[in-house]
Amino acid sequence: MGGDYAPKEIVNGAIAAAEEVDAELILTGDPAAIAAVAGGLPKKIQIVATTEVIEMHEEPVNAVRRKRDSSLVIGASLVKKGEADAFVSAGNTGAVTAAAHLMWHCLPNISRPAIATVIPSRTGKFVLLDSGATPDADAENLLQFAIMGGAYAETVLGVRNPKIALLNIGAEQGKGNLLSKAAYKLLKEKLPDFCGNIEGKHLFNGDVDVVVCDAFVGNVLLKTAQGLGDFVFDLFKESVPKNFFLRLPLVLLKGGIGRLKKKMDYAEYGGAPLLGVNGICFICHGHSSAKAIKNALILAQKGHERHLNAMIGERAATIESGDKISV
Amino acid sequence: MGGDYAPKEIVNGAIAAAEEVDAELILTGDPAAIAAVAGGLPKKIQIVATTEVIEMHEEPVNAVRRKRDSSLVIGASLVKKGEADAFVSAGNTGAVTAAAHLMWHCLPNISRPAIATVIPSRTGKFVLLDSGATPDADAENLLQFAIMGGAYAETVLGVRNPKIALLNIGAEQGKGNLLSKAAYKLLKEKLPDFCGNIEGKHLFNGDVDVVVCDAFVGNVLLKTAQGLGDFVFDLFKESVPKNFFLRLPLVLLKGGIGRLKKKMDYAEYGGAPLLGVNGICFICHGHSSAKAIKNALILAQKGHERHLNAMIGERAATIESGDKISV
Repeated sequence: MGGDYAPKEIVNGAIAAAEEVDAELILTGDPAAIAAVAGGLPKKIQIVATTEVIEMHEEPVNAVRRKRDSSLVIGASLVKKGEADAFVSAGNTGAVTAAAHLMWHCLPNISRPAIATVIPSRTGKFVLLDSGATPDADAENLLQFAIMGGAYAETVLGVRNPKIALLNIGAEQGKGNLLSKAAYKLLKEKLPDFCGNIEGKHLFNGDVDVVVCDAFVGNVLLKTAQGLGDFVFDLFKESVPKNFFLRLPLVLLKGGIGRLKKKMDYAEYGGAPLLGVNGICFICHGHSSAKAIKNALILAQKGHERHLNAMIGERAATIESGDKISV
Repeated sequence: MGGDYAPKEIVNGAIAAAEEVDAELILTGDPAAIAAVAGGLPKKIQIVATTEVIEMHEEPVNAVRRKRDSSLVIGASLVKKGEADAFVSAGNTGAVTAAAHLMWHCLPNISRPAIATVIPSRTGKFVLLDSGATPDADAENLLQFAIMGGAYAETVLGVRNPKIALLNIGAEQGKGNLLSKAAYKLLKEKLPDFCGNIEGKHLFNGDVDVVVCDAFVGNVLLKTAQGLGDFVFDLFKESVPKNFFLRLPLVLLKGGIGRLKKKMDYAEYGGAPLLGVNGICFICHGHSSAKAIKNALILAQKGHERHLNAMIGERAATIESGDKISV
């Protein structure tokens, strides 16, 4: 029931996913509203009826504590009870994070969750985390995010030996603020494949697969990129003459910006995983289309099937025990 | 002697500025190298001979302490001795910051300096600070940056009653990390014209004149914008057919990107002020052209003439004398 186009896009996304994934799907929500979208659901899809909805603007932790029979809380509780293996939502991002964190807790040896966003680069893509869950992170958290992001890239995105970098304001060791200096030392000591600092101007070159930062920096970065994209397009539009033929290329331009914006929008990658919690969770953008929901369900199934959380847990335990891990 | 095109662009910039500003100019550097660029200097320009040069890659604090007869250190010392009213350099940014901070100290009631970068927006421009001097800032620092940025916008850029916002990851009070939550409270209490949080996606809308953040976030933001601009242009180039006529618009496109990149580059605004130190200091990009140097000299003269630092000092004292809140 969460998201701007629920339940229509959610239900249609689930129906599309049912044809592609080897999994049973459970929709939590108002059966009448779901029936209004699709009269007959495929056999692989069942409904668990809920009576409440957490709205997009609600304060996350309060909403999760108060609305016990919301589609969001019931969805998370099914994973907690072992009745589902993964949870996908296009609802209130903070509430999804709070529900998964409060109800499932973190994986052993992981102290805070992180949202991993896939961003396009010159050679393909990279994973930026944390882009939303933990705005006050310490160096240990960033090390854990590196493990989580590496495991996600490896299992779900199929990147072999992902290269992991620390977002920083200088390339050399010793650059940065207190947090990034401490994190550099820790990552260098604990992660054999740590490839050092990366600056914002080199992010899109495609040299690394995973970029680690706290959620304040990650979220500012993502939203600034979005705002800049809009602004650049407007600047171009103004600089192009009003002549019809000269304006034609704008279509290409708009296509290019549109594609880039789509790529920057985690919905198009089927949602961003909330990593580090004891369950598989994907958060979709509120604007998610049926296609984005379908893609998120496919990714969630991959995360479960390829034992994403087992890999994170093993590596976190190895690090906690004082050894280097190999990623 | 600092910067990638020194002394040529520096000397030519000073010669161009001499025609426009009502000020005497002092070049610090190797007289022979300066003479090789311009045999006869205008009467308004004199030379103070120096024997050393701080290179762009040198560790800032060590370089400033060791190279006492560098053009950079001597330039800063002329201001300290009262023999100059302002200092402009295209040298090592960290070394300029270190020299001004170590030799001049901060203004009364200001505890840390900040670099203010002017960034284009839909309606004109805004000032982002800190973009490079203080990566570990606390809420008090951010309040001081707000005062400094507001005074700069008012005196040098001519913005009346500048609107000041806090860069954050949510629009409402209560959003953010520990630092931004504490800073919000402090700014709201102490600055009558504080207009709240601003998110990255709204930065370029032109609704505010001054945006405050720590130098880690500010520097990541600026460099990511630069990297994203390059990447977007490459994406467009690939999406345009190789047909000559269809490629023509690329020229417009390249112009647009180029203009935006120039606008994002503080050299084109004539350099970025290092605010909060007890003297007028402008830092130019290493790539600065003579035009950028000229513009920086004009801005520096404005900063002096319009009593930028007196305004910062007065406002900081007013705030300091008020009741402190606990954050």
